[in-house]
Amino acid sequence: MPISRRRALGTALAAPALLAAAPALAQGQAAPALRQAPGFYRLKVGAFEVTVVNDGYNRRPNPAEGFVRNADAAAVRAALAADMLPTEHLDITFNITVVNTGTDLILFDTGTGGLLAPTAGTMWDNMAAAGIDPARVSKILFTHFHGDHVSGLVSREGQARFPNAELIVPEAEWTFWMSERAPQQPAGMVKSRFGAYPAERIRRIASNAEIVTGITGLPTHGHTPGHTSYVIANGGASLLVLGDVTNHPTINVKNPGWHIVFDMDPQAAEATRHALFDRAAADRTMIIGYHWPFPALGYVRRSGTGYDLIPVPWTSAI
Amino acid sequence: MPISRRRALGTALAAPALLAAAPALAQGQAAPALRQAPGFYRLKVGAFEVTVVNDGYNRRPNPAEGFVRNADAAAVRAALAADMLPTEHLDITFNITVVNTGTDLILFDTGTGGLLAPTAGTMWDNMAAAGIDPARVSKILFTHFHGDHVSGLVSREGQARFPNAELIVPEAEWTFWMSERAPQQPAGMVKSRFGAYPAERIRRIASNAEIVTGITGLPTHGHTPGHTSYVIANGGASLLVLGDVTNHPTINVKNPGWHIVFDMDPQAAEATRHALFDRAAADRTMIIGYHWPFPALGYVRRSGTGYDLIPVPWTSAI
Repeated sequence: MPISRRRALGTALAAPALLAAAPALAQGQAAPALRQAPGFYRLKVGAFEVTVVNDGYNRRPNPAEGFVRNADAAAVRAALAADMLPTEHLDITFNITVVNTGTDLILFDTGTGGLLAPTAGTMWDNMAAAGIDPARVSKILFTHFHGDHVSGLVSREGQARFPNAELIVPEAEWTFWMSERAPQQPAGMVKSRFGAYPAERIRRIASNAEIVTGITGLPTHGHTPGHTSYVIANGGASLLVLGDVTNHPTINVKNPGWHIVFDMDPQAAEATRHALFDRAAADRTMIIGYHWPFPALGYVRRSGTGYDLIPVPWTSAI
Repeated sequence: MPISRRRALGTALAAPALLAAAPALAQGQAAPALRQAPGFYRLKVGAFEVTVVNDGYNRRPNPAEGFVRNADAAAVRAALAADMLPTEHLDITFNITVVNTGTDLILFDTGTGGLLAPTAGTMWDNMAAAGIDPARVSKILFTHFHGDHVSGLVSREGQARFPNAELIVPEAEWTFWMSERAPQQPAGMVKSRFGAYPAERIRRIASNAEIVTGITGLPTHGHTPGHTSYVIANGGASLLVLGDVTNHPTINVKNPGWHIVFDMDPQAAEATRHALFDRAAADRTMIIGYHWPFPALGYVRRSGTGYDLIPVPWTSAI
């Protein structure tokens, strides 16, 4: 008799009689496949069906150095430690908002597309798990054109991922990235992402335009020249699609005066954070933050010189 | 041609040519089935595989009245409002912890079993989604015997749900509920739940006993006479299974001096909260709270006269 079989029988015989019928966990048969639940979360905003789709994360090493322009490393480490986070790295997540209005299936930004970090690009699996078919997306709205927001437009081979979507872009953002003023390398990336779509499918809008009934732009310039947030409102409920008005909440929800390296106009970005969050705190507006921990839904509350992020409680009820 | 087909064609013809191939969302065909992602969450504690399984929630009407014994209604309403929660009801969730140690598949408490509230009892679906077979559960540890912790032992027909599990109960809890001192109706409920299992499958332990290597009881009496928390420790990592040392975090994580109606010895429960949370805050111990919003994982941090709950960030990486 092989050793392994004898050991298994020995275990079974040593167990109380009532447990003898139990599958022998010691043989390792009981371990469930270790997978996470799919990264999507559903809620309703009035009659609108909203799905948050997670696109994974990027692990930034040593976030205390070189991530925040105007805070010293000790202050950043202290902020991370106070929120019970590691100080040697910071996982920055990506969250795409999908809204079914009943007449349109609308995406807000398109994630990393799996092109930017090995730990990101889970949006395709998570969209599939949520029953969302990219071919049914009718409109994509963009907060801004940084690579982690526009790369999901295309496959690794450069093909359009959303064959039937109209791309709706803030005029100020478009104008900047297509101009000589834009830094060359990221501008090339932006052009290659949008270039996979016919020009007539790209519509430029004012940052305060109403896109469809109940979905309206809100100019939040600073992070980029044309950065635009969106308000989704239906049936007396609303949700603010923040984009990158902040990055990770420990960094600049709690510390709105901290300037991260990606804020192209740091002073304007800081002013935007204060103006927007003061209003959202007073109005008790539900917010989705692109880089907040999934499902990335919360409220802000004034606290000291910054804001607390109050996560929306998860519920099985939609 | 039927009206509906003519309408569909009309829509397609009216659309810009490039959008003509898009499925007509206006016809309502694109609405994905509106279901929530399954309510389980996975993490590792050293080599132990931990799964949090959600069992839904109970909606308590008017939580400002009659829920907290020693706070007036205005104070409770203010606490709820400060955390951006409604004041007219409070959803109290149920979360079961499952640990695969490699040799044992262990449950901590058994949920409502679907016997207590129409919005609760989702644990069976969520366990199935997580790949956890009740027949493979080898041990069930109990924090205490309130109905929302022991009812999952049995089906609606009173049959044992975990045919191969040993039930491990704190001696002090068992002794109380089997005694004349226990209130009659809940004691009858307790006896009916455990009565579905043969007496020789029920093992009584001291509240500070090591149950298996790496899982040890921690006496946290007060909420009930034998209430017991558990520390899961492996490979330098640990997780504290809190049980009902607190109910909803807005109520008595933030306000540890508040006595909810379910605390059988309110003074002892309050002392337990302070002692345990002071230690957990200092040690930066990860905690799972049975009634905290799913996935119910967080840290406590001292704040004023109470504690802040810092949720553990969701991650797709296990």
